[in-house]
Order: sequence, then C-alpha cells, then structure tokens
Amino acid sequence: MIAAQYVGNKSFEIVPATDKKPDADEVKIAVGYVGICGTDMHVYHGVMDARVNPPQTIGHEMSGTIVEKGADVTGFDIGERIVVRPLDWCGECPTCEAGLTHICQNLKFMGIDTPGAFQSNWTVKARTLHKLPASVSLKQGALIEPLSVACHDISRSRLKAGEKAVILGGGPIGQLVAAVAKSVGADVLVSEPNEARRAFAEEKLGVKSVNPLEQDLAAYVDEWTGTKGADVVFEVSGVKPAIDAMTQVAARRGRIVMVAIHSQKPEIDLFQFFWKELELLGARVYEGADFDWAIDLIATGKVDVEPFISSVNGLKDIGNAFASMDNNPQGMKALVECNAE
Amino acid sequence: MIAAQYVGNKSFEIVPATDKKPDADEVKIAVGYVGICGTDMHVYHGVMDARVNPPQTIGHEMSGTIVEKGADVTGFDIGERIVVRPLDWCGECPTCEAGLTHICQNLKFMGIDTPGAFQSNWTVKARTLHKLPASVSLKQGALIEPLSVACHDISRSRLKAGEKAVILGGGPIGQLVAAVAKSVGADVLVSEPNEARRAFAEEKLGVKSVNPLEQDLAAYVDEWTGTKGADVVFEVSGVKPAIDAMTQVAARRGRIVMVAIHSQKPEIDLFQFFWKELELLGARVYEGADFDWAIDLIATGKVDVEPFISSVNGLKDIGNAFASMDNNPQGMKALVECNAE
Ligand SMILES: [Zn+2]
Ligand SMILES: [Zn+2]
Ligand SMILES: [Zn+2]
Ligand SMILES: [Zn+2]
Repeated sequence: MIAAQYVGNKSFEIVPATDKKPDADEVKIAVGYVGICGTDMHVYHGVMDARVNPPQTIGHEMSGTIVEKGADVTGFDIGERIVVRPLDWCGECPTCEAGLTHICQNLKFMGIDTPGAFQSNWTVKARTLHKLPASVSLKQGALIEPLSVACHDISRSRLKAGEKAVILGGGPIGQLVAAVAKSVGADVLVSEPNEARRAFAEEKLGVKSVNPLEQDLAAYVDEWTGTKGADVVFEVSGVKPAIDAMTQVAARRGRIVMVAIHSQKPEIDLFQFFWKELELLGARVYEGADFDWAIDLIATGKVDVEPFISSVNGLKDIGNAFASMDNNPQGMKALVECNAE
Repeated sequence: MIAAQYVGNKSFEIVPATDKKPDADEVKIAVGYVGICGTDMHVYHGVMDARVNPPQTIGHEMSGTIVEKGADVTGFDIGERIVVRPLDWCGECPTCEAGLTHICQNLKFMGIDTPGAFQSNWTVKARTLHKLPASVSLKQGALIEPLSVACHDISRSRLKAGEKAVILGGGPIGQLVAAVAKSVGADVLVSEPNEARRAFAEEKLGVKSVNPLEQDLAAYVDEWTGTKGADVVFEVSGVKPAIDAMTQVAARRGRIVMVAIHSQKPEIDLFQFFWKELELLGARVYEGADFDWAIDLIATGKVDVEPFISSVNGLKDIGNAFASMDNNPQGMKALVECNAE
C-alpha cells in the first residue's frame, strides 16, 4: 500500500499509503488507473504549489474498485468498479442550493485542494461515485473524467446533429470534444498547427482538420459553411490568435464555448458579439449528468478512448510517467497503474 | 411636404420631401413624431459620414399614419396609425433563411443606410409595419423603437420574475431596459455616476440606483444578493470600468447582455467566465416580437414612456432639437414633430 507524493520541483516520493478508514459517508477504493492531465502537469511544474501545498498526493482522473464502505453508504457495494467525480462541494451556498454544485462557491477540487488518487487506495465521499458497467474496463475508466469535461462542454454548447462545430486546439481535451461532438451528429473541424494532432483527429476520430498557420481559417470556414459560419466554436487552445478566430468563424447567433483557461485578460472583439449576436459560454468541470453521459459513450462504443492512451506506468514509476509527458507533448494521455504489483 | 437632410458637420437643410409614390409592396406614411437617438447623434457629429453618405434624410424612431398604399399591400389600411421597424433584410442569406432577419448578413438599417423618417412623409415596405392600438398616442409611438431595443435585450437575457438585474449605465436605453426589467417582475439596480439619471431611475421608474464612483459596486451587489451575485447584467455604458464590473457582479451562471457598442477590443476577464460559467450575449436591434411586446407594454400601461420625452420641436427646428440634445446630455429623448404646421 503506497502513495506517490508530489514534493515540489518535478519530483515525487513514494511513501506508505495513508490507508484511511472510511467515515460513515465514505468508501475506500483500490485505485485502478489514474490519468495525468494538464492540471497535473501544471502542478508538476511548480506553478500551483501555493494551492497544492506539497507534499501532497495529487491525481483525479481515475477508476477503481470499492474495498471498504462506511455505515451510511447505500447503493454501492464492496467489489463494485467505480469512478470518482472529484468535486467536493459545500451544499450550503446559494449556488449549491440552486443545484449547481459543480460551481459551488466553496468548491474543493479533489487531487488539488485535497489528497488525490495517485495511491494504492483512496478514501472519498460516496456521493462522488459513478458505477462502471461491465463493458467498460478500468483502463478506459481512467478516461471518463476528461471525457466528462468534453461532455460538459458539448452540453453547455447545445450542439445538435447537423450543426457545424469548429474546435480551436487539438490537445487531449480538444480531441475529446471533437469525439463527443461527432457522437451527437455534428460536422466537426479541428484547427491545430501540429501535424501529429491533425493526423490523430483525421485518422483516429474521423473528423476534418485544418492547419491555421497554413490556411486562412476564417476563409476556410466561410467556404465550408456556405458563408453562414460555424454554429458552435470551442476555444480549447488558450492562445491569442484563437481569441480573434473564435469571433471570426462563428455564425450569427453562434455559440462560443470557452474551454481554455486564459489567465491574462485577452482583448475580445465585442463588436462581433453585437453584430452577430454571438454567445460566449464559460464551462467548468462537469455535472453528474456529464459523467453518466461519458460512461455511456464508452460503454456503447460511441466514443473509443483507447487511441487516447499513450502509455501505462506503475505507480512507483510515476516520475517517469510525468517526465515522458513533458518530453512528448503530442502524447494524449499517460496512465499510472496504482495496484500494479 | 418637407424633408430634413443631414448635410454634414452638425447641419441640416430643409428641402422639399421626395414624396415617393409607394411601389406595390410599400406604403406612404404621414410621419407623426420621430425621436433622436444616440446613433442619430453619432451621425450629427460626423463620425458616420462614410456610411450615411450626406446629404441624407436620417431618423428611425417614428410613428405615423398610412396615407397611400401599393396594390399588393394587405392587412393595412389608409388612415391606420403605425410604427416602422426600420430594418431592410435580404430574405435570401442563410441567416434570413434561419428566420433571424434582424441580423441578416446583408441588413440595411433604414434611416442610416437608406433614407429615414425626418420628413413629412416616408415611403417604406409594408413588411416593416406594426399597428398602434387606440390607447397609444403618436407621441408615445415614437418611443416604441428604443423600447423594442430594451425588449430585445431583456428577451436575450431570459430575465424572469424574482431575479436580480444590474444595469450598468443609466442613459435612455439603460433606463428603458430598467423599465422593461421591472415590468417582468425583476429586482432592478441601475449603476450610474450621474445624479440626475440616478434620480430618474428611482423617481420615474421606481428602481434602485447606485453611484459606482462613490460605492464599491461589487460589494454592494454581494450584499444585495446575499453573496450570490446578479442573475443578469446589462452592459449599456460602453465605458471600460463596466467591462470589469460586469464579470465581478454576475452570479455563477449569470447572463451578461452586451448592449453597448465597444468598438475598441476591451480586455475581458475570461477567467471569470470559466470560474463562474458566465454567459455573454450579444444583442442587436430587435425582432418583430420585440416590437409587439413594446407596443403592448405601452398600451397596457406597464411601461410609462411619457417621462422619457424631454422636448418636442417641429421639423423645421430639427437643428435646435439636435443642438439641445448636445447641450443637455441628461435629456432622455427629444422628439421632432414632422407634420407640425
Ligand atoms: Zn483533469
Ligand atoms: Zn456550495
Ligand atoms: Zn435608435
Ligand atoms: Zn439576409
């Protein structure tokens, strides 16, 4: 029973697991696989130390099996395979009372603000659990959290079958958004400078792609949509040119979903918002329904997450797993197996 | 039968009316009253000369009586009192085909891109007409176009009874938005530095007001809403501090309607869009339903537009009417009577 602790400066230490006994409303999980996400890479690079407060066990994209449960836990049994929706909400603020617990005014993100999943076992509140159907493997299960992010983005966008969607940025989240957009019957175009990522979009997902450094994206979309523009634009890249592109390529009454985190305040073409009656929608994490949707997409084969898995390392090798992501920015998703031996 | 022509550089000339005979799908209107709006003031100041192409008859906030009609016009009779929805759409672009004629890709705005209403009679397509009920005077009728702008803003915002709305800017449109917001049962706060405008909001409309230069608006809204924030924010001021205020005072999942035209690209706090899942909605002119709604609000007395009328001048005096607006920026709406003598 071990845990990996991020100790600062791109380093992890392997320590004994805390092996916390579950409280009445908690379960203890034997962790299966945990994915490394962009946020984890930010932590690894030290830019979130003030929030993470190392030494800390991080990790939140996980699957696992219940091994112990508290007295008040109903609806879940020992031995069941589950994933955790890693949100710890207060239940008391006006936003929670309005049912929007995922943007709770006192939200804690598990694996950042509280201990995470890079350990042999993890004890969490039972209210965070979603069951895995038999047709979904623990390996696939580790992709459910990032796929839920994409489901939430699509849900915020109100994207419908037959609509045209442009995705600015073909990293892991952009590609997952593309996959979910395709699954609802939309026509999908990924705008991405990197050739390997364009190839991933075309070959693994079967959607269109364009290199915005080589082609005039606005002209391309104008032609593709017969002057109408894109019904929905997802800004996933976080780069400045995308901020101009998003208002250019959107149709009148187009919806723009802000998936990327722009920590600087970018200059936005508000005139286009007026002129075309555009809509900008912020999207943050996911709701319970997004997890259910993501699980269903994998279970029914509507989205194939296998091509997203670029490597699998044991928990003791977590340092190599993070280093390989650093050295291979084209890799989509590195998994860490937490009960390997 | 005369027409006022804007000839450039804050000047008008009175010329004989064109007195155009209506085509088969047109009507000729004896113009009643025409309001002067912010856009007309921009034209007056010469900043829109390239688009307006003087000499040009401007004016678009009007009421009048049908005096002649083309052979194909049905549903309207000579002698009927009407207002014109001053939009000339193409009917053929993808946006028109989607039913969004008010943001047609080839939209012409009547009174700017084509001749307007500052004349004794005005010939327009019958498809632009809305009937005035007996309970609405021609004077009140001239306020229907700007009130329809406010109705469109409220409609875009999905504001509901019991919600809290903050209006940034208490000029004529901001006050009309406040009046419509109040009519749907919302709690309304107008943020406006000018004392006379705050008094207008409180005394004429019966809504709350705050001076953002004297009080911390975000703290005020936090307290007013019990930490939740405003359900809807209308940015009507066009000034930079409002761009920061709008993301600060909005609740989680709050809707921000961009009413002001920001021709510069302002720096926007996108992080707040992510963090609070905000929504930014562009709003441009109005749809037919907004005109019907505005007419109903006046006819039923739910909105009283009389306090908005600050002066009435005859058409020959149009120069004075514009000059008085220039010298009295607190005046809400100056009307020009086009068949005074
Ligand atoms: Zn993640
Ligand atoms: Zn809460
Ligand atoms: Zn106007
Ligand atoms: Zn059109």
